[in-house]
Amino acid sequence: MKTTIGEFLIDRLKAIGITEIIGVPGDFNLSWLEQIEAADGIRFVGACNELNAAYAADGYARQRGVGALLTTYGVGELSAINGIAGSRAEHVPVVSIAGAPPQYATEYRWNLHHSLANGDYTNMLDAIRPFTEVATRIFPMNAVEEIDRALRACLREKRPVHIQIPSDITHLEIEAPPFDAELPGSDSERRQAAVRKILNLFEAAEDPILLLDQDADRHGFLPLLREFGIPYAHMASGKALLDERHPLCLGTYNGEASSPGVRERVEASDLLITFNPRFIEANSGSFTHNLPEEHVVNIGDQHISMDGEFYVGINSLEVLADVAAALPERGSVGTRYSPGPFEPDADAPLTQARLWPQIGEFIREGDVVIAEAGTSNIGLGPIRMPDGVQYINSPIWGSIGFTLPALLGSQMAAPERRHLLFIGDGSFQLTAQELSTILREGLKPIIFLVNNRGYTIERYILGMEREYNDVANWRYADLVEVFSPGSSMRTYQARTEGELAQVLADVDGAAFIELHLDPFDAPAGLKAFGPATAEFDFGPRGPRNP
Amino acid sequence: MKTTIGEFLIDRLKAIGITEIIGVPGDFNLSWLEQIEAADGIRFVGACNELNAAYAADGYARQRGVGALLTTYGVGELSAINGIAGSRAEHVPVVSIAGAPPQYATEYRWNLHHSLANGDYTNMLDAIRPFTEVATRIFPMNAVEEIDRALRACLREKRPVHIQIPSDITHLEIEAPPFDAELPGSDSERRQAAVRKILNLFEAAEDPILLLDQDADRHGFLPLLREFGIPYAHMASGKALLDERHPLCLGTYNGEASSPGVRERVEASDLLITFNPRFIEANSGSFTHNLPEEHVVNIGDQHISMDGEFYVGINSLEVLADVAAALPERGSVGTRYSPGPFEPDADAPLTQARLWPQIGEFIREGDVVIAEAGTSNIGLGPIRMPDGVQYINSPIWGSIGFTLPALLGSQMAAPERRHLLFIGDGSFQLTAQELSTILREGLKPIIFLVNNRGYTIERYILGMEREYNDVANWRYADLVEVFSPGSSMRTYQARTEGELAQVLADVDGAAFIELHLDPFDAPAGLKAFGPATAEFDFGPRGPRNP
Repeated sequence: MKTTIGEFLIDRLKAIGITEIIGVPGDFNLSWLEQIEAADGIRFVGACNELNAAYAADGYARQRGVGALLTTYGVGELSAINGIAGSRAEHVPVVSIAGAPPQYATEYRWNLHHSLANGDYTNMLDAIRPFTEVATRIFPMNAVEEIDRALRACLREKRPVHIQIPSDITHLEIEAPPFDAELPGSDSERRQAAVRKILNLFEAAEDPILLLDQDADRHGFLPLLREFGIPYAHMASGKALLDERHPLCLGTYNGEASSPGVRERVEASDLLITFNPRFIEANSGSFTHNLPEEHVVNIGDQHISMDGEFYVGINSLEVLADVAAALPERGSVGTRYSPGPFEPDADAPLTQARLWPQIGEFIREGDVVIAEAGTSNIGLGPIRMPDGVQYINSPIWGSIGFTLPALLGSQMAAPERRHLLFIGDGSFQLTAQELSTILREGLKPIIFLVNNRGYTIERYILGMEREYNDVANWRYADLVEVFSPGSSMRTYQARTEGELAQVLADVDGAAFIELHLDPFDAPAGLKAFGPATAEFDFGPRGPRNP
Repeated sequence: MKTTIGEFLIDRLKAIGITEIIGVPGDFNLSWLEQIEAADGIRFVGACNELNAAYAADGYARQRGVGALLTTYGVGELSAINGIAGSRAEHVPVVSIAGAPPQYATEYRWNLHHSLANGDYTNMLDAIRPFTEVATRIFPMNAVEEIDRALRACLREKRPVHIQIPSDITHLEIEAPPFDAELPGSDSERRQAAVRKILNLFEAAEDPILLLDQDADRHGFLPLLREFGIPYAHMASGKALLDERHPLCLGTYNGEASSPGVRERVEASDLLITFNPRFIEANSGSFTHNLPEEHVVNIGDQHISMDGEFYVGINSLEVLADVAAALPERGSVGTRYSPGPFEPDADAPLTQARLWPQIGEFIREGDVVIAEAGTSNIGLGPIRMPDGVQYINSPIWGSIGFTLPALLGSQMAAPERRHLLFIGDGSFQLTAQELSTILREGLKPIIFLVNNRGYTIERYILGMEREYNDVANWRYADLVEVFSPGSSMRTYQARTEGELAQVLADVDGAAFIELHLDPFDAPAGLKAFGPATAEFDFGPRGPRNP
């Protein structure tokens, strides 16, 4: 079928489930924007800046399985690079597209704006390449091949890809072949051997356990794993992947910082099924994890390793489906976890110790809970989420400011789901303007702004009372009116448990809730994590908090 | 002298004129922040995010000759990369420093937060390297050598450098040698030969002209060039480098978009002295420049080319000083340019045609005028600045949002100078939160927010009435009270020439002035530039504005 290069790219994005492309216009992407305007079933959503747009595309991908970002050459794509790298770190498939200078100008190395004016047009791709699975500039002759290669890699590897499209080729004709994004199936002998082996291991095992990290989600394993009907522990980087209140849920595995009993159980398991777990300081109890390696079955998306053998040629979805179908039904397993009712002490100031349990009662089945790095993510860690909650965070990359734009993307992708955002003031300031786009799009999130006057996670690592950990104290809630005069988003302040209880009882629809907490208060997890991190970061000769 | 690595770096920064380090804290840079806290004569200033900090460090360097930026590994340094690249494009020396993971962790490739959790600790430097003169990670054994190499390169080449400092080595002892940042002198024969040649060319020339681009400023040539006493033209990327109202000032050279008469004069000059001019679309009348190559003397900082010969081993400051001293005094040359008095039409709505002349009257000798890409920079282009005005823009890189944080850095570095910022609403939204830091630091800028509901520069390129060129209409001036309740910064609104006249008469101290302009109005320069850019960007097959 004849089409144009720009329309081809749009059609491909639609085919993989994109209905919104998030970004910032720039002269090199305007001709493609014209094609987006003309297309049905897909639209461009302008963000305030490119880093925010990248975060939003990541949030979008958490709902839709893939997100799309549009920037312009140099200034735009480089501004987005930290967001793209975050998607790479967290294994989130984002298609990043940048309008590039016209082909003849780069061919002849003309000096242009948004370049270093030194004739070099390879440096932007070079900078972005380390954080993507594919980084490429398309031309008319390679456009079909490169676009399809990039999109397939993005979906297969769950990694971002970056495509530069020169501004003068969007309207040129090409021939569009059909598109198939399906993963190849397994080698049949390897598949059968792997299934047989796993079933044998199950037969011999007394305490099979799933250790869930984010790859289990990214590659779509969760519905199958749920069918296994065996106990599971979450890594801190895989929070709430399966129902945290189910009787089979053991709690969080985090080395010596695990929930009670979980470390012993996981490390003594005689069949521990893992999913390419990635241990960093924060999800390993500062590297005190100790998996029973000889009993581990590790399931990647394209390989499985167990009992000294590495199975390749595997589409793990097929293997997991076979295993799930073959495993015996398991009987009833006990009662669901139920948090005790939280009794607010009406005049008690909000504290990190009691805030998160109080919040926990407010979270409902099916909510999207977005937790910013710092006290929010650490405070919510021990709160067991109801079934069907999707928990969005950035446990590896941990770029502060990520969650507000991620909320924009996630809720745009799934407007039917209730979205709760928890973000500290220090983090909020990095990307605050994106609240404007959330309001312009008419989204209805409930935003909890945890105001503790700065970077409390850092205070606990070093500089407890240092000014460098403080931020200016804004009138945060007033931003709603600044960004969107007449907005229907309601604003609240809460300083006590009683005030918060009232707010939570009142909230119905879009809300911006400012919670005032003591700058030196922290969740228990952070109180332990801070000094351990200082020890790790600064070594025996470095400074410590008094 | 014995010192520690962190203190060594601080002392070196102080030695080159840094008294403020701008950045964002993160756990990998906290131990160095402790050393900054303990040091005299230098302090850390926290920005809201890293890109803004990088822009601010650039603005700081425009005043002090060098700026310093502090970020943390991965998330921080990547967020700053677009700002660093902008400094590279505009030849601004910025020392970018990032706290890095502890040395043993990178040595053993442990997975850490702020990394891709794949054991790779070279990717951040690889990404940043294309935009810096030096990108390096220091260790105790190379710290002295690498820091001094980086700082000398930064000052010599007027390019950013990037130094990663592992978090566990800041407090380790090293031996500090003395520091010398002076440039080596010229080879004496080459220096004399170049001076002789230039003086010979002057003797034969009827119409010697200086063509000023930004390198003439970056390398400190301007005071010497002023002594030459010969006519000069500015490139659009070298605006106001010498007094634009002086009788010797010819106007702007910009190919076919030059000010009247300038193109003919420059292109017919029989001794045209250039300073590594960098022609892009926007300063060459879309590549219609045509210098008289055989009559060009091109002066780089370390080389001079003329009459078919390339002189190396040259410290051009020495050569220019010799030439300036040897050139004959020139007599009086006419009368200064004086803009006619602007007569506001009290009820007339503000227009791009008359706004900038009205603003021109408000600009005083010695002001720092900061002009955001778009209508502000294009509108101010034809306005001849009074003597001693420093004009800060980003003519090559053109990253929108640059100027608000650049104002923070520039005014922090030169608080005694009156600062005027002109920025459009679309640009303002990218980096708006940095107004908070400007207010927190107690700076007293006069900020003109040109509200025309979007990206007007892009409207004139493509999509005149498209929604993708619109931005949300904030209550911009209310941000002052949100960010700094009780601030002494006064806020104003102006919709007519009369209102603006009143505001300008009233302003005394910090002010935020919102100017309301028609979304489809543009300075004459943009009306010409837009279609030319569309032609250039989209080629014969691309779309055009109706």
